[in-house]
Amino acid sequence: MKIFKPISESKAKGKVKRIFDDIKKIRNIKKIPNFWRSIAHNTETLERTWNNLKQIMGKGTLDPVTKELIYVAVSITNSCEYCIRSHTAAAKKKGATDQMIKEMIDVVGIANQNNKLVEAYQVEVDDIYK
Amino acid sequence: MKIFKPISESKAKGKVKRIFDDIKKIRNIKKIPNFWRSIAHNTETLERTWNNLKQIMGKGTLDPVTKELIYVAVSITNSCEYCIRSHTAAAKKKGATDQMIKEMIDVVGIANQNNKLVEAYQVEVDDIYK
Amino acid sequence: MKIFKPISESKAKGKVKRIFDDIKKIRNIKKIPNFWRSIAHNTETLERTWNNLKQIMGKGTLDPVTKELIYVAVSITNSCEYCIRSHTAAAKKKGATDQMIKEMIDVVGIANQNNKLVEAYQVEVDDIYK
Amino acid sequence: MKIFKPISESKAKGKVKRIFDDIKKIRNIKKIPNFWRSIAHNTETLERTWNNLKQIMGKGTLDPVTKELIYVAVSITNSCEYCIRSHTAAAKKKGATDQMIKEMIDVVGIANQNNKLVEAYQVEVDDIYK
Amino acid sequence: MKIFKPISESKAKGKVKRIFDDIKKIRNIKKIPNFWRSIAHNTETLERTWNNLKQIMGKGTLDPVTKELIYVAVSITNSCEYCIRSHTAAAKKKGATDQMIKEMIDVVGIANQNNKLVEAYQVEVDDIYK
Amino acid sequence: MKIFKPISESKAKGKVKRIFDDIKKIRNIKKIPNFWRSIAHNTETLERTWNNLKQIMGKGTLDPVTKELIYVAVSITNSCEYCIRSHTAAAKKKGATDQMIKEMIDVVGIANQNNKLVEAYQVEVDDIYK
Repeated sequence: MKIFKPISESKAKGKVKRIFDDIKKIRNIKKIPNFWRSIAHNTETLERTWNNLKQIMGKGTLDPVTKELIYVAVSITNSCEYCIRSHTAAAKKKGATDQMIKEMIDVVGIANQNNKLVEAYQVEVDDIYK
Repeated sequence: MKIFKPISESKAKGKVKRIFDDIKKIRNIKKIPNFWRSIAHNTETLERTWNNLKQIMGKGTLDPVTKELIYVAVSITNSCEYCIRSHTAAAKKKGATDQMIKEMIDVVGIANQNNKLVEAYQVEVDDIYK
Repeated sequence: MKIFKPISESKAKGKVKRIFDDIKKIRNIKKIPNFWRSIAHNTETLERTWNNLKQIMGKGTLDPVTKELIYVAVSITNSCEYCIRSHTAAAKKKGATDQMIKEMIDVVGIANQNNKLVEAYQVEVDDIYK
Repeated sequence: MKIFKPISESKAKGKVKRIFDDIKKIRNIKKIPNFWRSIAHNTETLERTWNNLKQIMGKGTLDPVTKELIYVAVSITNSCEYCIRSHTAAAKKKGATDQMIKEMIDVVGIANQNNKLVEAYQVEVDDIYK
Repeated sequence: MKIFKPISESKAKGKVKRIFDDIKKIRNIKKIPNFWRSIAHNTETLERTWNNLKQIMGKGTLDPVTKELIYVAVSITNSCEYCIRSHTAAAKKKGATDQMIKEMIDVVGIANQNNKLVEAYQVEVDDIYK
Repeated sequence: MKIFKPISESKAKGKVKRIFDDIKKIRNIKKIPNFWRSIAHNTETLERTWNNLKQIMGKGTLDPVTKELIYVAVSITNSCEYCIRSHTAAAKKKGATDQMIKEMIDVVGIANQNNKLVEAYQVEVDDIYK
């Protein structure tokens, strides 16, 4: 074994088990996804990541759907397949429609293009944006 | 001159001038920002980019504020200062509050972190996400 | 064939064969990994890459394990599966423990997050860091 | 004001002040760097980020110098000037020599190059690395 | 279904069908590749992307082969397998030889390395380049 | 001093001086640019980088102008200002026209956009590209 494999849910004990239970309850799911089972190799990482995510992705001034769409937009930009697939699913579960996802994708596409046009022309920041 | 400098607004003629006028009208601004004055070195690029942006960033199922926040999220991930500054300004002009921007930033931060945890553990996509 | 496939070890001749032999000797391995068999399509690339890597990754003030961990950290940040897997294996072969790898991953995660918080807030460099 | 400016240390109150005091004590510094003063606009972000960083960057199986070098390696790969400068300073303060930094940089350079050679040739993962 | 699957060519109607026909004619191909069948979920995206690509990738001062090599170089840097494979194929169809592709790859490799050395040493722009 | 500053040309001795002289001769320049003066802190890095660059960027099946354009395309994608500026200058010195540079920029823009559309739709590689 070179890379850590996801640990089995049935082998989770103590703090790991309690966090797994919290994930299933908050997310309203029956099985722990591979991401959490993988980082569970490091209990501190699991606990910290779950607590951070719960705090950040919950309802705030931005609604949870918007937050998920932003999360997917970043994941597309970083080419993270797992993240794109799991958070697109999360966005849909929370109410995102296909049309919303398509519009988000278009914004991601043009932003990535224009970000590079700005670099290519080495555009200086206008005074009004400083 | 090694890199193209922004062209002066007063020197814009023909199609470039018409596009500059459209940008000022649609955006409700008095001066053309450096980005458009830079890419105006290539009339086709200016026209294509403006038409694309108008089509994509206008009102759809997603409201313009959400689109701007997604645009900024991508620009942060790509480390594009000009894009972060100009589209944060655009987001605010369209109604984004400081609180919305802070929450967007937090999502961008955790998404960038978790994207890399997924790579580090080479997490396989769960069947339910396929 | 659209993309270059790894060339067969048994077909390596001349300089390519000598480099393959050197790789097997220095790395103490029996089979040439796909990376070297792929870039062997360009003898100059193979020779240059192997010589560079030997010079850089050998023992210096930093020990070889630390160098491999740094290599993996970069590869995670760039989302290169092959590189993550092969250099995690190399790190372990040279003595990296699971605990060391987990701690490296945590640093990679928080660095990727904070790098983006810095961009989001456009933090200026403090005088003491200049 | 378009982007959040660092808040003044003298205006920090309550939880923000307590965290600033903890940063100064743990880091053995007299002034709070711009990074912390910037993210202090969001108390939750400040608290979470500081707690995460303290947990991750402290002494573990990897020594703090190695962790800082890994942090800088990621920051170079992500082109984050502030992060490169501040964590190179941190690495030196914790004992990194110029020679160690130079060797880290060389590893970052070749890893970035080889990561792309792997993509270019679309190298498949060898069975022994799976 | 979590992510949009490519739509079947036989189900394309109206504007989508006309664009598919144009792609097949201009590209001199019999089947529409998965990329176009995927973005066809959004007719506007399909139309805009195809029109942009036709305008940009056609013959200009740079010949189409050079443009395809530049496209592949970007795709390698962004680690986009589909893009690397499809545009390497396009480059070959337009006349790129294996030797040209290998030389392009070498440039991509060293550029990625030196880009990071520049960041690591925070090299300031020389006056003659400003 | 936190980050290595460029070393003065007048202080270069031995191997560093010989490499500086070779750079000036081959490049037909009077002053050593900051990049080389920075990495000269590590003689091995200077020597290796210069030898690699000379080998890769010289005339091959691809002409030197095309190679420089590819180098700039990668540097734009990686947002490396120094690299964009210095290699755009190099491209012009070797014969690149403004029109060629503008067309290269357009290709870089659309490639960055389409790379992300491919990720967003998770497009599978067509059989003909495998």
